[in-house]
Amino acid sequence: MVKGYFITFEGGEGCGKSTQIKLFADYLRGKGISCLLTREPGGSQGAEEIRALLLKGEANKWDKVTEILLFSAARRDHLVKKIWPTLENGTTVISDRFADSTMAYQGYGYGIDEESIKMVSNTYQMIASNFEPDLTFILDINPEIGIARSIARSGNDEQRFEHMDLTFHHNLRNGFLEIAKQNPKRYAIIDANASIEQVHQDIITQFEERL
Amino acid sequence: MVKGYFITFEGGEGCGKSTQIKLFADYLRGKGISCLLTREPGGSQGAEEIRALLLKGEANKWDKVTEILLFSAARRDHLVKKIWPTLENGTTVISDRFADSTMAYQGYGYGIDEESIKMVSNTYQMIASNFEPDLTFILDINPEIGIARSIARSGNDEQRFEHMDLTFHHNLRNGFLEIAKQNPKRYAIIDANASIEQVHQDIITQFEERL
Repeated sequence: MVKGYFITFEGGEGCGKSTQIKLFADYLRGKGISCLLTREPGGSQGAEEIRALLLKGEANKWDKVTEILLFSAARRDHLVKKIWPTLENGTTVISDRFADSTMAYQGYGYGIDEESIKMVSNTYQMIASNFEPDLTFILDINPEIGIARSIARSGNDEQRFEHMDLTFHHNLRNGFLEIAKQNPKRYAIIDANASIEQVHQDIITQFEERL
Repeated sequence: MVKGYFITFEGGEGCGKSTQIKLFADYLRGKGISCLLTREPGGSQGAEEIRALLLKGEANKWDKVTEILLFSAARRDHLVKKIWPTLENGTTVISDRFADSTMAYQGYGYGIDEESIKMVSNTYQMIASNFEPDLTFILDINPEIGIARSIARSGNDEQRFEHMDLTFHHNLRNGFLEIAKQNPKRYAIIDANASIEQVHQDIITQFEERL
């Protein structure tokens, strides 16, 4: 049985990931590729329980180390219970956020923090060994635009990160770009300021060139 | 300001930790030493939320790696929000379980597992650096007796670990003894098969000799 692809979408708040993931999944299905959509934090029953702890409550509810461990615990559950079995089954998995989000948010969001970067990297090694996505799209957007979109549309209570200040979101954007630079083969940076249709076309072009 | 002592009680299910901690705290207070009782997993608001995820549900709800990360996340929150500030304040902290439980349960309970032992040790380093308890009491009990006590008294739903099989609890006991052997200065092994009063006296004797 040929394994499915593991494809992740990353980017700051309001960059349009959800919309683009749906369009991309429709495109893949149109080509006869079966795929499963999932998200982080969460994606499996246990991980969704951890998600609730992470995204609700005060912005400073958890210190950074605790946060890294909780995101990693959720990711491990997601990998073991959902991602790995689905890929083994020959189905492509598309995840709305994955490990690069932890690296960008906790390693770069509060300012470049070498200690946290090392901790995120070591913890990832613990949960996933040398497994990684086949392709990661970074939807790159101007943070002012992204945040405004995200707060406007959101009727929910999962806004811990939206309420960080704007410096945080600029750091975050630079973090994603920095991560992408370290492995250009795996990361495709997409200009997410463009129209929905244009962004979708760019994603398809990159996918066809790379996988 | 002189820092408080950090004293932990460890041992398998039904070893009598709660009873002994209360007696020991009364003894310390009688000597004019102010102390705070706490427990793991939990002990701080965030850690108690993680506790609920860890102790409720099916015995195989989480895989071992996820479990280690969740216990460590809870421990970090407990240290940052409660243990460290209380010790700084000159108050002695007595904890019903701490890091040695994670080592014994996840590193030894399912059979000696070198990879998990290393993971528990690395994760502890992440959350606490070189901080450790001043004194740890291991309440050593015959597992058959301990489990029977624990299930009999318990009207609650936090019994994930009580329902592991007896081999697990024998491994656990051996784990605690193995951990204690590695640092006899910090660990006092107490025979918890004895009467409540005898166990209490042994604890006081060890405390007075050591701190």
